[in-house]
Amino acid sequence: MTHFADRLHAAIQAKGAPVCAGLDPRPDWIPRSFFDAAFARHGRTPAAVREAVRAFCLEVLDLVAPFVPAIKPQVAFFEALGPEGLSDFAAICRRGRELGLLVIADVKRGDIGSTAEAYAQSLWGSTQVAGVTIEGCGADAATVNPYLGEDGVRPFFARAREHGGGIYVLARTSNPGSAEFQQLELARGGAVVDEVARKISTWGAESVGTCGYSDVGAVVGATHPEAALRLRALMPRTPFLVPGWGAQGGDAAAVKACFDAKGGGALVNSSRGVMHAYASGPLKSYGEARWKEAVAQAARTFRDEIARLSVPAA
Amino acid sequence: MTHFADRLHAAIQAKGAPVCAGLDPRPDWIPRSFFDAAFARHGRTPAAVREAVRAFCLEVLDLVAPFVPAIKPQVAFFEALGPEGLSDFAAICRRGRELGLLVIADVKRGDIGSTAEAYAQSLWGSTQVAGVTIEGCGADAATVNPYLGEDGVRPFFARAREHGGGIYVLARTSNPGSAEFQQLELARGGAVVDEVARKISTWGAESVGTCGYSDVGAVVGATHPEAALRLRALMPRTPFLVPGWGAQGGDAAAVKACFDAKGGGALVNSSRGVMHAYASGPLKSYGEARWKEAVAQAARTFRDEIARLSVPAA
Repeated sequence: MTHFADRLHAAIQAKGAPVCAGLDPRPDWIPRSFFDAAFARHGRTPAAVREAVRAFCLEVLDLVAPFVPAIKPQVAFFEALGPEGLSDFAAICRRGRELGLLVIADVKRGDIGSTAEAYAQSLWGSTQVAGVTIEGCGADAATVNPYLGEDGVRPFFARAREHGGGIYVLARTSNPGSAEFQQLELARGGAVVDEVARKISTWGAESVGTCGYSDVGAVVGATHPEAALRLRALMPRTPFLVPGWGAQGGDAAAVKACFDAKGGGALVNSSRGVMHAYASGPLKSYGEARWKEAVAQAARTFRDEIARLSVPAA
Repeated sequence: MTHFADRLHAAIQAKGAPVCAGLDPRPDWIPRSFFDAAFARHGRTPAAVREAVRAFCLEVLDLVAPFVPAIKPQVAFFEALGPEGLSDFAAICRRGRELGLLVIADVKRGDIGSTAEAYAQSLWGSTQVAGVTIEGCGADAATVNPYLGEDGVRPFFARAREHGGGIYVLARTSNPGSAEFQQLELARGGAVVDEVARKISTWGAESVGTCGYSDVGAVVGATHPEAALRLRALMPRTPFLVPGWGAQGGDAAAVKACFDAKGGGALVNSSRGVMHAYASGPLKSYGEARWKEAVAQAARTFRDEIARLSVPAA
């Protein structure tokens, strides 16, 4: 089975830049027309709200598909619409794959072994339960929290591998308070995140694609240039998933630090900067009437900016 | 609004022991009759599998309700049944509350601020979206992963407080590999988990009930007696949620270490040892035919064992 790392590598080549469109649908920023249409069909019901959000996300997928090799739907924004929202999340994942996009389920799951296995079933492939086939959400990769240690991570990795998938383990997250525990200094030298990085690198050595990168990646925020540089050195074959570009204040220096000497090894994510481009940021003047143009334009600009940053220094 | 800590304290007094029944439904261990009934109604479909699991869990709730003040449904086992499984998880939470049980959603969520807020919406209370009320799953408390730092934890805590709820932050988990990152020794002395504990204690000081315990709890596995003793000292007012009793090998010494000098401050969880008592463990001889007796008996024994362990030393 083709490695996730190789599929991602090929998809990046095909689209021309290592970029990922995050899908964090914020209802306040979704064009009003989606709600009007759904309310007209179903009344002012929770089901109508979910339909509006889903319809919007599906249109966003069509708009960004020409520019990005991967999408990263964030499950929390679907769970926030009620438990039925998880079905919409799965529908978005499926549609992403139909469009040839790699789907990174941003779920940040993590639990003890047998529970981690249950989560992994929900993400990759299908499972026989009492003789009935239960389909997972059809992700290619998922984000995983390392706090529980290796036996909390490995079930995700094992299941992902079986299905040609991958995982991205949280290393240095993009949020302002990420240093609090991640950068605690250790008695043996270095910081907590360095130990996490070493383990990610070790786990990943078991599954390296022909492109030279592993199926076990690391989440490294675009908001900490020095940390990124250090983590790049600690994890030479580890693909980085780099959130925080745009709205969260990620900058070019931090993103450049995530790429290796060949200009590879990182996938940069932008969420609201692309999908909600008409609601905030430089394309706000497009407004709801021209929201599709704004999203397509933002995806194109994002792709071109990151393509430039990922060119190796001469 | 009454504090979560006080509601839990009163519920423990009413039931006679600080015990929690975990709901981690493993389909292989659910009496066959549930599947037969569901298949007869719906055919061999994923919906029938979910109905069987839901029906079983609802019966377990009725059986354990006389003996336990709280339940802890584990969302992973519901997500593993397909995205629609999250609706069954919510149904279990609702039914638990109807039975007067405190509901601890074992979701181990954690993410950056705005995403953590979305998760928190899915757990406590209801949210207005485009003028429509979206109900959360109706938990009283939830488990939260601290790896992202305070700004990844606080949105959960803030929302929980608004609704008289609480959170349990992972400190030392019950799994075999939990020491890997949690016990890394720090340059300043102590281990990573000690820093997590200090923060839990600090956050919790903002919200202490009249019972003397906080609404911010800590997950401390029943599998590490020395760690439990140390964490008890570091977090004197923090209520512990103590998984790992029974099937995971938790022992009396570790559980005793989780209680404070007054015999309070801990809620001990048993999952498969109660809900799947007829399928493994000392009551296996009951078998499927007498599964209800086995579950009720296991819940009673569990309550009595933990009641004895929580009596303060004379």
